[in-house]
Amino acid sequence: MLLGGLREEVLAANLELVRRGVVVYTFGNVSGISRKDGLVAIKPSGVPYEELTAEQIVLCNLDGRVVESNLRPSSDLPTHIELYKHFPNIGGVAHTHSEYGTAWAQAKLPIPCFGTTHADYFHGPIPVTPDLTADEIAGEYEKATGEVIVRTFANIDPDHNPGVLVAGHAPFCWGNSAGDAVHNAVIVEYIARMATHTLAVNPDARPLARALHDKHFFRKHGAGAYYGQGRGGA
Amino acid sequence: MLLGGLREEVLAANLELVRRGVVVYTFGNVSGISRKDGLVAIKPSGVPYEELTAEQIVLCNLDGRVVESNLRPSSDLPTHIELYKHFPNIGGVAHTHSEYGTAWAQAKLPIPCFGTTHADYFHGPIPVTPDLTADEIAGEYEKATGEVIVRTFANIDPDHNPGVLVAGHAPFCWGNSAGDAVHNAVIVEYIARMATHTLAVNPDARPLARALHDKHFFRKHGAGAYYGQGRGGA
Amino acid sequence: MLLGGLREEVLAANLELVRRGVVVYTFGNVSGISRKDGLVAIKPSGVPYEELTAEQIVLCNLDGRVVESNLRPSSDLPTHIELYKHFPNIGGVAHTHSEYGTAWAQAKLPIPCFGTTHADYFHGPIPVTPDLTADEIAGEYEKATGEVIVRTFANIDPDHNPGVLVAGHAPFCWGNSAGDAVHNAVIVEYIARMATHTLAVNPDARPLARALHDKHFFRKHGAGAYYGQGRGGA
Amino acid sequence: MLLGGLREEVLAANLELVRRGVVVYTFGNVSGISRKDGLVAIKPSGVPYEELTAEQIVLCNLDGRVVESNLRPSSDLPTHIELYKHFPNIGGVAHTHSEYGTAWAQAKLPIPCFGTTHADYFHGPIPVTPDLTADEIAGEYEKATGEVIVRTFANIDPDHNPGVLVAGHAPFCWGNSAGDAVHNAVIVEYIARMATHTLAVNPDARPLARALHDKHFFRKHGAGAYYGQGRGGA
Repeated sequence: MLLGGLREEVLAANLELVRRGVVVYTFGNVSGISRKDGLVAIKPSGVPYEELTAEQIVLCNLDGRVVESNLRPSSDLPTHIELYKHFPNIGGVAHTHSEYGTAWAQAKLPIPCFGTTHADYFHGPIPVTPDLTADEIAGEYEKATGEVIVRTFANIDPDHNPGVLVAGHAPFCWGNSAGDAVHNAVIVEYIARMATHTLAVNPDARPLARALHDKHFFRKHGAGAYYGQGRGGA
Repeated sequence: MLLGGLREEVLAANLELVRRGVVVYTFGNVSGISRKDGLVAIKPSGVPYEELTAEQIVLCNLDGRVVESNLRPSSDLPTHIELYKHFPNIGGVAHTHSEYGTAWAQAKLPIPCFGTTHADYFHGPIPVTPDLTADEIAGEYEKATGEVIVRTFANIDPDHNPGVLVAGHAPFCWGNSAGDAVHNAVIVEYIARMATHTLAVNPDARPLARALHDKHFFRKHGAGAYYGQGRGGA
Repeated sequence: MLLGGLREEVLAANLELVRRGVVVYTFGNVSGISRKDGLVAIKPSGVPYEELTAEQIVLCNLDGRVVESNLRPSSDLPTHIELYKHFPNIGGVAHTHSEYGTAWAQAKLPIPCFGTTHADYFHGPIPVTPDLTADEIAGEYEKATGEVIVRTFANIDPDHNPGVLVAGHAPFCWGNSAGDAVHNAVIVEYIARMATHTLAVNPDARPLARALHDKHFFRKHGAGAYYGQGRGGA
Repeated sequence: MLLGGLREEVLAANLELVRRGVVVYTFGNVSGISRKDGLVAIKPSGVPYEELTAEQIVLCNLDGRVVESNLRPSSDLPTHIELYKHFPNIGGVAHTHSEYGTAWAQAKLPIPCFGTTHADYFHGPIPVTPDLTADEIAGEYEKATGEVIVRTFANIDPDHNPGVLVAGHAPFCWGNSAGDAVHNAVIVEYIARMATHTLAVNPDARPLARALHDKHFFRKHGAGAYYGQGRGGA
């Protein structure tokens, strides 16, 4: 089995989506990339998670051509590929229709950074894309979805903001690996839940002050990080 | 046991309702039809799900007469029968009092299509019936419930909109089979949850643009479908 | 063990409270009465549910005197006793601080009957008591809680409205037996959830029309009932 | 293993956080103190709960110096230490980012006492701290977090109000022991949920009258307590 390790990792990441309660039925998909081989491993389209095996994980090249599989890849593959092409440091992509994250995407509003949970992961609000045009929808829709995400990040660092809300659709998240992308997808759902409740309790709630936002983000990321057991700490 | 396969399928579909968290106690019921035999298999009235067996699933003809059972059918049988009579392509009906779907039915508002999750299943808002009249309630109430659903679909295609909210009551959903009807009932609950949160976050949220709504619906349905592993795809 | 059967039933009903997710820690308590013996069996005060045994269920007479136990009864015993004294047909009482039912009690609003789920159990809104006076709180507080419930039901039939919200406190429910009281406590929580979501979606939602409310209530209760497998049906 | 009993207790308390659903991933941490030894036992930083062992629980003195461990303590240690230094009766501290408690912290609003569930644990609203200044954030941030909590309690008795919302961050709770601190953290989440729903149902909801608030608090605390099986009762 070609790239068996990557496939096992992508399988495990897909199953983790289910375990964390961020997908229902066949919604959602996770992929991982081998940059060295230029190959993406992704969930097959419409296969129930409970039946999924590593063999069924579909390998594709960056043109979207299937390399080794009898199954079709997730129909969202072209979106994943756009992200891999333009965000050179990412190793995995996770797409969910998680309950509250999707609600914010449907509301077409970015999620403001209301607290340090958010600031631990995102160095700014979780952005929302503009709407696709009718032409983009009628054309290569899934590729256009990737393109509008990339445009949304023209002035945002994808390594410091590992996810986005696609307007009227749902979140796409990414990370160092397929597993890390799923971790970020779970966090986006959690942040979205808390932001919803924050506004319910106080419609005038204000985003976190910049100083505190920076403090929490850089406590966990970059050269000055001192959270966890890693070597980068103070 | 007459139509044992259908009964087993209807039993499994009823139990799936419980597993998916869309019923509490004996609320809810699922039926399936054998079009060839003109017989409907439905949950008995008021029997706890945990005790339900395939033998207890009640077989009835389309006049509502019990064919083989010591138990009474669900009191909602006449509603199911109206749907089978007027929606000729459906093979199963599922009724729940799921938490958020019922809330929308109680609010007497159709669920707008706020996103692609909705558009993947419903080609339009999830409709809500008008109120029954006092005469309809006093007469054959459960049959009248079916009739008001059918009237609500006078200009809506039930094959493209597999569910409805009965005003002041709860959702009824349908599908190709009993299992498919349950699948749609779970989706209606999920859509209802997300629509509720969408409005909480943005009271001015707008329905999805028609082009994106059509794109998602026809990505999964009809001759041009290309989602899943079926043969209809691009 | 005196009245072992009743104690086992009250134990099972208390554990069912936990299983149904309507209590956290030691909150909540259930009792049952033997009318013949004039004895009430109730959960001991502050004992964790996971350790509870039938032997620990406390037997008391209707003066609140403990008949057989080393443990103190729930501090809410005097409330239960008032209900048994004034509602002669009830066999069990369940008190919870369930999440949404308590929220309505804290909001000091009756729960309007927005749909047929509610109408299947309550023949009217779920009432809320007036506040206790400072004197009542300073005096025999738990007894006064029972008295204010009884006063609230001066013109309401407790057999057709098996529960109440104590203002600023939480629900008390009752039924034919301890188990039935728990069933009603779970239903009150479910109705409270749905009513909350109904108002979130439509702040102008209106209570169910009287005809439909009556239809559903009497479909399940009284001489004309035809729901379930009982003999009273049409 | 030094202070093995305390470490086991702190381990159990950390795992209880997970079991009660108030943490996601590595968020949250619990510590306990041996006042006699002047040592604090705390969760290591960034270690997944499912892998945590008693050996990994980090022992530190009240200067924050690690006494026995290869692992770094939770980065929130300096906050815990401030609380131990200024609240002399507490034996444990629990920090979570629980969903609703964090939402109130993000909303920067104290949780009003809307009902007796709250009054059973807190003798007043659950306070929210003022914002930290930019200087405090830039300096010893985690210590400053402890200091702002202590300042918030200048006129509040921490023994009667076992928790606080740190503005823009999340709850910190405490108690007689690590386990008791976790118990209070779970209760704060439950109170926060119910307060959110109370305001959803009735935006004009009023705090509990003082007499009822006192009644419930002192039913469970102090010399006149009569709840539970303890000796202090009436």
